[in-house]
Amino acid sequence: MIGHGFMGAAHSQGWRVAPRFFDLDAAPIMQVVVGRDAAAVAADAHKWGWAESATDWRAVIARDDIDIVDIVTPGGSHAEIALAALAAGKHVLCEKPLANTVAEAEQMADAAAAALARGVFAMTGFTYRRVPAATFARDLVAAGKLGRIYQVRASYLQDWLSDPEAPLAWRLKKELAGSCALGDIGAHAIDLAQFVTGFRLTSVSGIIETLVHDRPVSAGASERGAVTVDDAALFTGRFDSGVLGNFEATRFATGRKNALRLEVSGTNGALSFDLEDMNSLQYYDATAADGLRGFTKIQVTEPVHPYTANWWPAGHIIGYEHGFSHQAKDFVDAITSGNQPSPSFADGLQVQRVLAAVEASSANGSAWTSTA
Amino acid sequence: MIGHGFMGAAHSQGWRVAPRFFDLDAAPIMQVVVGRDAAAVAADAHKWGWAESATDWRAVIARDDIDIVDIVTPGGSHAEIALAALAAGKHVLCEKPLANTVAEAEQMADAAAAALARGVFAMTGFTYRRVPAATFARDLVAAGKLGRIYQVRASYLQDWLSDPEAPLAWRLKKELAGSCALGDIGAHAIDLAQFVTGFRLTSVSGIIETLVHDRPVSAGASERGAVTVDDAALFTGRFDSGVLGNFEATRFATGRKNALRLEVSGTNGALSFDLEDMNSLQYYDATAADGLRGFTKIQVTEPVHPYTANWWPAGHIIGYEHGFSHQAKDFVDAITSGNQPSPSFADGLQVQRVLAAVEASSANGSAWTSTA
Amino acid sequence: MIGHGFMGAAHSQGWRVAPRFFDLDAAPIMQVVVGRDAAAVAADAHKWGWAESATDWRAVIARDDIDIVDIVTPGGSHAEIALAALAAGKHVLCEKPLANTVAEAEQMADAAAAALARGVFAMTGFTYRRVPAATFARDLVAAGKLGRIYQVRASYLQDWLSDPEAPLAWRLKKELAGSCALGDIGAHAIDLAQFVTGFRLTSVSGIIETLVHDRPVSAGASERGAVTVDDAALFTGRFDSGVLGNFEATRFATGRKNALRLEVSGTNGALSFDLEDMNSLQYYDATAADGLRGFTKIQVTEPVHPYTANWWPAGHIIGYEHGFSHQAKDFVDAITSGNQPSPSFADGLQVQRVLAAVEASSANGSAWTSTA
Amino acid sequence: MIGHGFMGAAHSQGWRVAPRFFDLDAAPIMQVVVGRDAAAVAADAHKWGWAESATDWRAVIARDDIDIVDIVTPGGSHAEIALAALAAGKHVLCEKPLANTVAEAEQMADAAAAALARGVFAMTGFTYRRVPAATFARDLVAAGKLGRIYQVRASYLQDWLSDPEAPLAWRLKKELAGSCALGDIGAHAIDLAQFVTGFRLTSVSGIIETLVHDRPVSAGASERGAVTVDDAALFTGRFDSGVLGNFEATRFATGRKNALRLEVSGTNGALSFDLEDMNSLQYYDATAADGLRGFTKIQVTEPVHPYTANWWPAGHIIGYEHGFSHQAKDFVDAITSGNQPSPSFADGLQVQRVLAAVEASSANGSAWTSTA
Repeated sequence: MIGHGFMGAAHSQGWRVAPRFFDLDAAPIMQVVVGRDAAAVAADAHKWGWAESATDWRAVIARDDIDIVDIVTPGGSHAEIALAALAAGKHVLCEKPLANTVAEAEQMADAAAAALARGVFAMTGFTYRRVPAATFARDLVAAGKLGRIYQVRASYLQDWLSDPEAPLAWRLKKELAGSCALGDIGAHAIDLAQFVTGFRLTSVSGIIETLVHDRPVSAGASERGAVTVDDAALFTGRFDSGVLGNFEATRFATGRKNALRLEVSGTNGALSFDLEDMNSLQYYDATAADGLRGFTKIQVTEPVHPYTANWWPAGHIIGYEHGFSHQAKDFVDAITSGNQPSPSFADGLQVQRVLAAVEASSANGSAWTSTA
Repeated sequence: MIGHGFMGAAHSQGWRVAPRFFDLDAAPIMQVVVGRDAAAVAADAHKWGWAESATDWRAVIARDDIDIVDIVTPGGSHAEIALAALAAGKHVLCEKPLANTVAEAEQMADAAAAALARGVFAMTGFTYRRVPAATFARDLVAAGKLGRIYQVRASYLQDWLSDPEAPLAWRLKKELAGSCALGDIGAHAIDLAQFVTGFRLTSVSGIIETLVHDRPVSAGASERGAVTVDDAALFTGRFDSGVLGNFEATRFATGRKNALRLEVSGTNGALSFDLEDMNSLQYYDATAADGLRGFTKIQVTEPVHPYTANWWPAGHIIGYEHGFSHQAKDFVDAITSGNQPSPSFADGLQVQRVLAAVEASSANGSAWTSTA
Repeated sequence: MIGHGFMGAAHSQGWRVAPRFFDLDAAPIMQVVVGRDAAAVAADAHKWGWAESATDWRAVIARDDIDIVDIVTPGGSHAEIALAALAAGKHVLCEKPLANTVAEAEQMADAAAAALARGVFAMTGFTYRRVPAATFARDLVAAGKLGRIYQVRASYLQDWLSDPEAPLAWRLKKELAGSCALGDIGAHAIDLAQFVTGFRLTSVSGIIETLVHDRPVSAGASERGAVTVDDAALFTGRFDSGVLGNFEATRFATGRKNALRLEVSGTNGALSFDLEDMNSLQYYDATAADGLRGFTKIQVTEPVHPYTANWWPAGHIIGYEHGFSHQAKDFVDAITSGNQPSPSFADGLQVQRVLAAVEASSANGSAWTSTA
Repeated sequence: MIGHGFMGAAHSQGWRVAPRFFDLDAAPIMQVVVGRDAAAVAADAHKWGWAESATDWRAVIARDDIDIVDIVTPGGSHAEIALAALAAGKHVLCEKPLANTVAEAEQMADAAAAALARGVFAMTGFTYRRVPAATFARDLVAAGKLGRIYQVRASYLQDWLSDPEAPLAWRLKKELAGSCALGDIGAHAIDLAQFVTGFRLTSVSGIIETLVHDRPVSAGASERGAVTVDDAALFTGRFDSGVLGNFEATRFATGRKNALRLEVSGTNGALSFDLEDMNSLQYYDATAADGLRGFTKIQVTEPVHPYTANWWPAGHIIGYEHGFSHQAKDFVDAITSGNQPSPSFADGLQVQRVLAAVEASSANGSAWTSTA
């Protein structure tokens, strides 16, 4: 694993837990975690249960005993590491967004396509697809339960920047993060909407903004630095099906901590999901009997639901981290079965193009901009 | 009262009930209701408790014993009736949207301004402002409880057109309704957002669409007619404060029956309202003690809340119709106290300009369009 | 109408509104309201739209132009007035609880039975049955949607006595109110549970308590008086079907303003109702497809639901007061059609017996006590 | 670890995960899991990451390399194993209920007291105390945020027996489970209510029932066996503070999957918790400003909340299993710091006495029965 921030902890838990709840054809070994600060990465490796730590990711990638490279660094370094890892014949799991630019993402997708021909797999880490309620939503749409889809609403609302004195984190610097509200959380909203509906966004009209322009360089510091990314993004998207979607990503939705929301409306029903209540799915069956229609709060914890048979009895919920457990399981399954995992780097690239189109639209007076 | 559809029933209940719960300086007399079909209007007049019915609104407006003209007809006839009524020296309450075009609305606002100089009042019927939770939301914002406002989310979600076989109502014909999702329900979202924040939209970028293009001319009919209005509208608006707002109005939000929603996010807190749960307001106090923050569901039924001291004990809710009761009360109060009621026709005109700007933006590739 | 407190306002609204929304075969005339304080009752009569006021209820009952006597006084005077009114051949609507003692209630039920033989009707005012969601719940149970019923949970939670300095209202004096938490709100929980299930409580085991023993005689007064009634009641009841019910009535449920709640669980499903959200009903269909089960929040505002076709479009809610509107409608319908209205005085007596059995059980160490 | 059913999986996850998120002074080693079926226990040991498996728990307890014995067998075997383990000088964590009888639990508590004198610790596994929202509720009560407590409502509602054809699990046999609704889930409701309030139940009046008397011996079997335990329990309890509590435990609450609920009402506020939404706590602050009071839904995921600083960012929830992670952490902390862990075996015995008192009360016509 390259990187050891918050995502490192989450991925570690995924690798640790997946084989204990799912029957995998190969047990992942948590071998080495790589970071720039030798002491810090050693501490995290020990804490998280990795056998070793290291500071030179190139050396690690070159090792014969490493089969999988899991990239959890900031987006600006994804391309370089992923390209090297794929070249070295390692299966690569890369955090989203795939890269900070479309050009980088294209290189990565190309490399992944080439690697695939050699039996080497690459996957983009959109873990929220693997929340059981989200996967189940996709299944219901795919089964036609919603009929013709009319509209999509997707938003990712957080509030950790509502305080104008919240410090200047790396996610607020363009050179590291590329994009903030749009790329970090908007990317999840885009992927989830596309995943659940099976549609792809073909054009967008939107606006990105920076609401707070400078912040303390660290908590309580008097020195201030410039916020060089967007911290809020709003856009309307047209899917290949012709359907319109309403998108918002913001870190100024005071009181909303982690509200990735999706609502899909169709002739025969609707689905509504909120990550803050991630173990349930709201389902409206427009074909139910007169007088009995309404949104049904399904606790997506029954054995029949995706992934849940391997967890606890009905009504016993799972937490945020198990999107990563399911991702680890699915990636291992893909490798052992020889099937391309999903979402691929090409899928990650497509999301990257949507992000770029939103930025371009914003720079061009919200003109409709193709994602092609 | 001119007109006797669904709005006629609601307005009648407002006039009937207001003096029974509020101390008014003048008791409204429900004298005459006007409609085109003599038998039908007579039946409704009797049912709703009006003393008389009539078919010639001009004759009614000319009567000396009529002080107030309440217009609840489709939007296309608002201007003609309102202008005549104001000219005849009658106080006028006109349903929203004020008119079907900006030009008509301008005439009406001009006439209202002229009438005001003669002590004659005109008011636009945005009743949702008078739902206690909405008025209370405005009060909290005005009192600075939210601090600097960052963002606004407003939507009005209904689903009565989700069924593609729902018949072609008058609201779906441009010549009568002017606009459907945008003008009928979007107008409420615009007014509510502006009312609660005290901001005015200065420019918009958006899109309106017709999702179902033809429908049965009546329930179950084989003959179909064209839907000539929008049935869904999405737009982003910039307020005079610089704040961005995300707006959606649709009649295809399957399962959402009457979800006029508003969320306002600020440095110090947030408010969230949903008309489907109209007796409560969600309030997030970002200044509350660490660990105790969260959205508080305030039951807006306490004596300290707007209008509610005149109703029932705390926790005993009121219904949809009492926006109209409060409107009747406030209009009578304005007349008896000699103060211009709010929202004025000028306020109605301003909303009309926003609607027109959204339509223009939609016709122009979602280009940002001024509401001036 | 005899009495003019809070219930007087609610009943008045019911009489006023019912004929405007429902087609009645006879239009009720709001003739005279009776109270002890001539000035106060005159003011209320005028405010509420009654033609006259009076101070001598016996004289009013004797009048030939009075057909219906509506009793909204404290429970201690119900029997005397109701007996006199029935003797005078008037139809009687009496607020719940029917009386302060079983003996009084028995007299009233006997008198009602005798009056019925003369075509004179008596009805007990359990209005919450007539909240559309409650009536609909009864309909679903009656239609067998829940299968065999296993359990019932009923509670009425309020908090207006949570403040130990809340003043000593008449409801806290035994001579006027008879009982407080148990008789005033517990009676509603009992009636609602019996109404929805169709079961009757045959025995109970419970406890009543007084949590705050003395209170200021009026708001802010230094003089304190004794609370001579229960202010909280908990009991378990056995229905004639063998099913157990869990009951609680309290005015110390801090933060709960008007939470009359009922949950009924059966082999095939469950229903859950909360008066604080009185326009919706939660329904769990245990026979729904695997993976799709969950509580469905039905907005009980569709034309197919009880009473609602006469109100507003779907999703437009009604308020507390319209239980009284529906009661007025149903009482007039019963009279004009010559059918005994429900709940009868005998039904009111049965609830009275349950209340008495709970008190007796409490006095006897919570021993199981028959309601017969 | 002795036992390897569902609780075994949960405990294993707790032991595995605790040291990865919390800084422990000693890292637990998952050495050996014991079961009767050698093949099955070997498979589970491998799956769950234990180094070894065994079938003879006495032999394992005798091993020098074993410091902690974790008992997750059915209640009937707790006493024998725990007594042996304590005698062997092992620290013991024992699942709840502590035993199947008070006599066994007394022996265990005595043994634990004796062991404590030798520096050997014993703990009862009421893990729901360690859900952050529950621990936080306790903290708020202890800090006096609720003022004088008036009432307690506690229930544990599940529905896995609603289907009368659900098979006869071991939990339905008295010889194995001792008690079902009361002992298995009612025990949690009792412990949680006592833990959060700091009160102890001193007497109870209640009833236990068996709603379905026979069931298929296995899924789909035609042979049926008798249910020899209660499957629903209702009781009222008196705490040492004088406060009354309303308790219910049932497996017939159709649609409720895992609803352990607690509501505590006081002069200054109230708390409401539901395990189905275990990452949040509803808090009503009766001292908040007029007009702003209401239940606040606190997402108990902030760093300031119990245990949560070691998990994910605010709004990122944790799952059911981490009550076990926190239990593992707290037990290790207790051992390494030399402090008696809580809840002790004496605490477990006290709950056992409450369970026994409810059974005795039920057998004695719901007479009030002391828990002493």
